[in-house]
Amino acid sequence: MRKEKSSEKSKIKIIPLGGISEIGKNMTLIEYKDELIIVDCGLKFPEDEMFGIDLVIPDITYLLKNKDRIKGIFLTHGHEDHIGALPYILKQINIPVYGTKLTLGIVETKLKEHNLLSTVELIKVASKDIVKLDKISVEFIGVSHSIADACSIAIHTPLGVILHTGDFKIDFTPTRKVFPDLARFAELGRKGVLCMLADSTNVERPGYTKSESVVGETFMNIFSKAKGRIIVATFASNVHRIQQIINSAERYGKKVAVSGRSLENVTGVALELGYLTAEEDTLVSVDAINRYNDDKVVIVTTGSQGEPMSALSRMAYNEHRKLNIKSGDTVILSASPIPGNERLVSRVINQLFRKGADVIYSGIAEVHVSGHACQEELKLMHTLVKPKHFVPAHGEYRHLKKHCELAVELGLDPNRTLIPELGDIIEVSRDGIKRNGTVVCGQVFVDGLGVGDVGNIVLRDRKHLSQDGILTVVVTIEKSSGSVIAGPDIISRGFVYVRESEDLMDRARAIVKEVLQKCEEDNITEWSTIKGNIKEALRVYLYEKTKRKPMILPIIMEI
Amino acid sequence: MRKEKSSEKSKIKIIPLGGISEIGKNMTLIEYKDELIIVDCGLKFPEDEMFGIDLVIPDITYLLKNKDRIKGIFLTHGHEDHIGALPYILKQINIPVYGTKLTLGIVETKLKEHNLLSTVELIKVASKDIVKLDKISVEFIGVSHSIADACSIAIHTPLGVILHTGDFKIDFTPTRKVFPDLARFAELGRKGVLCMLADSTNVERPGYTKSESVVGETFMNIFSKAKGRIIVATFASNVHRIQQIINSAERYGKKVAVSGRSLENVTGVALELGYLTAEEDTLVSVDAINRYNDDKVVIVTTGSQGEPMSALSRMAYNEHRKLNIKSGDTVILSASPIPGNERLVSRVINQLFRKGADVIYSGIAEVHVSGHACQEELKLMHTLVKPKHFVPAHGEYRHLKKHCELAVELGLDPNRTLIPELGDIIEVSRDGIKRNGTVVCGQVFVDGLGVGDVGNIVLRDRKHLSQDGILTVVVTIEKSSGSVIAGPDIISRGFVYVRESEDLMDRARAIVKEVLQKCEEDNITEWSTIKGNIKEALRVYLYEKTKRKPMILPIIMEI
Repeated sequence: MRKEKSSEKSKIKIIPLGGISEIGKNMTLIEYKDELIIVDCGLKFPEDEMFGIDLVIPDITYLLKNKDRIKGIFLTHGHEDHIGALPYILKQINIPVYGTKLTLGIVETKLKEHNLLSTVELIKVASKDIVKLDKISVEFIGVSHSIADACSIAIHTPLGVILHTGDFKIDFTPTRKVFPDLARFAELGRKGVLCMLADSTNVERPGYTKSESVVGETFMNIFSKAKGRIIVATFASNVHRIQQIINSAERYGKKVAVSGRSLENVTGVALELGYLTAEEDTLVSVDAINRYNDDKVVIVTTGSQGEPMSALSRMAYNEHRKLNIKSGDTVILSASPIPGNERLVSRVINQLFRKGADVIYSGIAEVHVSGHACQEELKLMHTLVKPKHFVPAHGEYRHLKKHCELAVELGLDPNRTLIPELGDIIEVSRDGIKRNGTVVCGQVFVDGLGVGDVGNIVLRDRKHLSQDGILTVVVTIEKSSGSVIAGPDIISRGFVYVRESEDLMDRARAIVKEVLQKCEEDNITEWSTIKGNIKEALRVYLYEKTKRKPMILPIIMEI
Repeated sequence: MRKEKSSEKSKIKIIPLGGISEIGKNMTLIEYKDELIIVDCGLKFPEDEMFGIDLVIPDITYLLKNKDRIKGIFLTHGHEDHIGALPYILKQINIPVYGTKLTLGIVETKLKEHNLLSTVELIKVASKDIVKLDKISVEFIGVSHSIADACSIAIHTPLGVILHTGDFKIDFTPTRKVFPDLARFAELGRKGVLCMLADSTNVERPGYTKSESVVGETFMNIFSKAKGRIIVATFASNVHRIQQIINSAERYGKKVAVSGRSLENVTGVALELGYLTAEEDTLVSVDAINRYNDDKVVIVTTGSQGEPMSALSRMAYNEHRKLNIKSGDTVILSASPIPGNERLVSRVINQLFRKGADVIYSGIAEVHVSGHACQEELKLMHTLVKPKHFVPAHGEYRHLKKHCELAVELGLDPNRTLIPELGDIIEVSRDGIKRNGTVVCGQVFVDGLGVGDVGNIVLRDRKHLSQDGILTVVVTIEKSSGSVIAGPDIISRGFVYVRESEDLMDRARAIVKEVLQKCEEDNITEWSTIKGNIKEALRVYLYEKTKRKPMILPIIMEI
C-alpha cells in the first residue's frame, strides 16, 4: 500500500514529437522519473507546398536538452516513417538503438550510407524480449504489418504499463506464419494497461483489412495467365509482397530479377537474414533476363507511387538503361497511391497502357492490401488490451478524433481519452490523464545537404517564385552625384515570354526610370526607399497589365 | 443505290481538340463536307506542374483557319469542363451557341463577366429538339448527370448518325423526375448509329452509379438529427444536390442561406428558370441567419475540394467575413475529392474537426454520388445504341483503353473501335473507321490576363525556381578597360537562409571574382562566355556544398 501511495505522486510523461496530426515522422517519448525512451524515429515526405524539400524530420531540441536521460531509441519496424530520421538524429545524439533483426538490418544499410555504422550501438531484440532499464523495462510484442518483424512496444513502469501498438494490422493468415501475439495483448489487458497509444491511420475504414495472402492468390492467378514478362512495382520494404512474387514465380517456372537500389538493399538484407527465401536459381540479375523467354521473366521494381525518377517511370518512358516496357508485358502496381500521389500514379498507368502493356492496379484486381488495422481490428485490440487511458497515435487530426470516438463507443470514459498535439506533455497516472505543458517541437526540413537551413521564409519565396516568376531590376548609380550611369536593366524569369512581351518590358523600364528621376528630384538617397518605390510602381503596373504578381528584386550598384 | 454510292466517297470527320487523354477541356469537332460543328467548349484546371497557371483551354488554330465552315457550338451541359473556354474562344470567333435552358443560363452569367453577352448569339433548345443545318442536323437527347438539363447530341448526316453521349449516368430515380430518354437511344440504335462517342471517366468502376436520390435520403437522416447549424459544401453547379438540401431543410423547418459567388450565380439562374424550387420563405441571405436559432440554419457553400480561398476553408480557418465554424456545427462535404485534391480536402476536414464540428464526408456516409456512368450503365448504353463504330470520349488514356475493351466485350469488332489522340482526324464511313492525319492541337495556358503568353520555357523556369530558388550575380564593368568597377553582388531568394549562410555567400562572391579576373587575364570579353563561366563555377561550388541547384542569373552592367 505504501509503495502505491508514493508512486501515485509520480507521473508518466508521454510526449509525441511526430506522427500526430500527420502521417509519417513518427516519434514518441515516454518518460518516467529520470528515464526517457524514444519510440521510433521517422521521417515524413514533403507536402505539396514544401517546394524543393527532400525530407521532413522531427525537431529534437527537447532531446538535445535532455540527452543524459535518454536510454535508447526503440523501433517498432523498419519503415521510413519510423526509422528514416535516425541518421540525422544519431549525428547529434549518440544513443543505443533497439529493434528486431530485419528492422536493424534495414537501419544498418541506412547508417552505412551516412557513415555512422561504426559509431552507433545497435541492439537486436525479438518479439517477447524485454529490455530492462533502471526503473522501467521495454517489451517487444510481434504484430502483423506490411513489413516483416514489426512489433508493438510495452513499457513497464512502476505506475503501470504504457502500450504503443506501433503500426499494425491483425492478419490471421500471414505469409510467413508469424502470427500477431494476440495472447500477449490479452494477458497485458488482463493484468491492466495504464495507457494505450494505437495506430489510427485506417480508423475511418469499416470492417477488416484483408490478409496479405489475398494478394498472393491474385498473383498466382495473374502469373498463371501472363504470356509475356511480368513487372511488379511495389514498396521496397514489403518483404511479404516480394516473397509472394517469388512464390508465384517459382510455381510457374519463372525467374525473378530485382531492379532499383532500395529494393536491392532490402531484398539483400531480407535474404541474408532469412526473411525472404527463394530456390537457388530463382533470382537472377537484371542483366541476365534477356537469356530467358519473356514468359519466364518477372521483374520486381520500385515506382508504385508514380515517382517520375523511379525505375517503373523510366521503363514506361523509355528512359531506363536496361529495361523498357513493351507490348505483351503485364505490369502490376502492387500498392495504393498515397494521398497526393494519385495524379502521378495515373500518369504512369496511362503511359504503360500506351506502351501496350496490360496494366493491373488496385481497383481493377486485389493486388494490394493495407498494412494498417481497420475499425474491427482496432476494436479487437481495444477489447483485448482494455486500457485505462487511451491516446490515439499516428494519424491526421480526423483519424485521431475518430479513434477516440471508437474507444468511447467501446465503453471507455471520454475523460480517459486525449487527442494529443505535437509537443504536448501528456501526464498519465492511475488518477487520470492530462496535458501539462508543451516542449519545443515542429518540423525540420532536409534539402540536399542542408538540415534546417530552409525555413518558412525560403519556402514562401519559392512559392512566390513558382507562381509568377521573378523580375530583376538592376541599376548602377554614381555615389557622389546620385545619378544613374547604367541601366535600369530588367531581366525576368518565369514571368512572361520575353520575346512576346517587349512592349511590356519597355514600359516597365520607363517606369523605373521615372521613379529614379523622381527620387533624384526629391533628394531621396536612401536605397531602401528607392527600392521600395521601384517595387511598388512596377507591382501596380504589372498587375494592371497581366494580373500577375512576380517577385520584384531591385538591385542598386554604386560606383 | 446511286445515292449510297456517291455518299460512300465522302466521309465524316471527327476531330477531338480536348477531353482525350485528360479529364476536362472537352471539345470535339464533327465535319461533314463544308459543315463543321463543335460539341462543347470546356476548360481544364491546371495540373501540379503548371505553376501559376489559372486555366487551360484548347488550342483552336484549326478552328481559326476554318472559321467560315463552323455552323455552331453545341453544348451538352453547363459544367466548366464543357463550357469554360467559351469566353476565350468566342472572343476570337463569333459563332452561335446552342444549348438547353439551364446550360445557356449559366453561359450567360459567364459571358456577362467577359462583356460578351451582347455580341454572341445564344440559341435555346430542349431535349428532343433537332437543329437543322444544311446537310446535317443536330438532335438533343436528355440524359442524367450531376447538373440539370444535360443532353447527348446526335448528329444526323447523309452517311449516318454520329452520337456523342456527353457526360452521363443513367438515373432511374432522378430528383426532378426528368428521366434519361432511353427510348430515343433505343430508336436510334434500331435505325442504325454509324459511330458513338461516349463518356469514359467511370469505366473502371464496376456496377451502377447510385441515384442522386440516395443522397437526399442521407440528407434527410442528417438533417433530422443535427442539433446545431448545418453547413453543406458542394459543387456550385449541382442543382439537384441544392434542391435536395432545400427539400430536407423544408422538411425539418430550417432556413437555407447560400454563400459564395458561383453558388449564388447558379442558384439565382436555376431559381429563375425553374430548375430549383423553394417555398417562399426558405431561402434567406447569409446576413439574416443570425436571426434564427442554430438548429434552424442550413448554409450551402463552395469549397468541397478544399480550395484554400474557398468559403468553406475561410470559415474553417476563421477568415470568413460573416461565418465561422463553431462547436456543434454539422459540416457535410457533399462531393468526392477530384484526383489531386485529396490532401487539400483532408486538410480542411482536419481543421473542421479541430473547430469542434461534426464532419460528414464521402466514405463516412452517402453524401455524394458520381455524375458519370459506371460499367453496367455504359453496357446498357452500348447495347441500346449498338453503334457500328465506337470512339471512347472524355477520359485519360487508361479510361479510353478500358472503354474500348468494354465495347469489344459486348461484341463489337475491335477494328471498328479507335482510341483517339488529341488532334486526330478520324474518318468514319460505312466502310470503317481510320485515322487520316492530324490538325494542330494542344493546351493554351491562361495566367491572369495572359492567354497563351506562358509556355513551356516559362513553366520550366517556374519549376526550377520553385525547387531551389535563384541566385542573382550582378557586376558592373568598365567598357573601355574591361575591369570590374562595382560588385560582384550576390542576392538570393528561395535558396538558403541568408543570415545562416554568410560563409557560403562570401565564398561564392570570391569565386565570381576569380572567374572575372581569369577572364580579364585571358582577354575574354564576350559577355555570354563570361556569364557562362560564372554560372558554371557557381553551379559546381553550390552543388558540392548544398546539393542544390538554384537558378543562377549573372547580370553584367557596362558603363
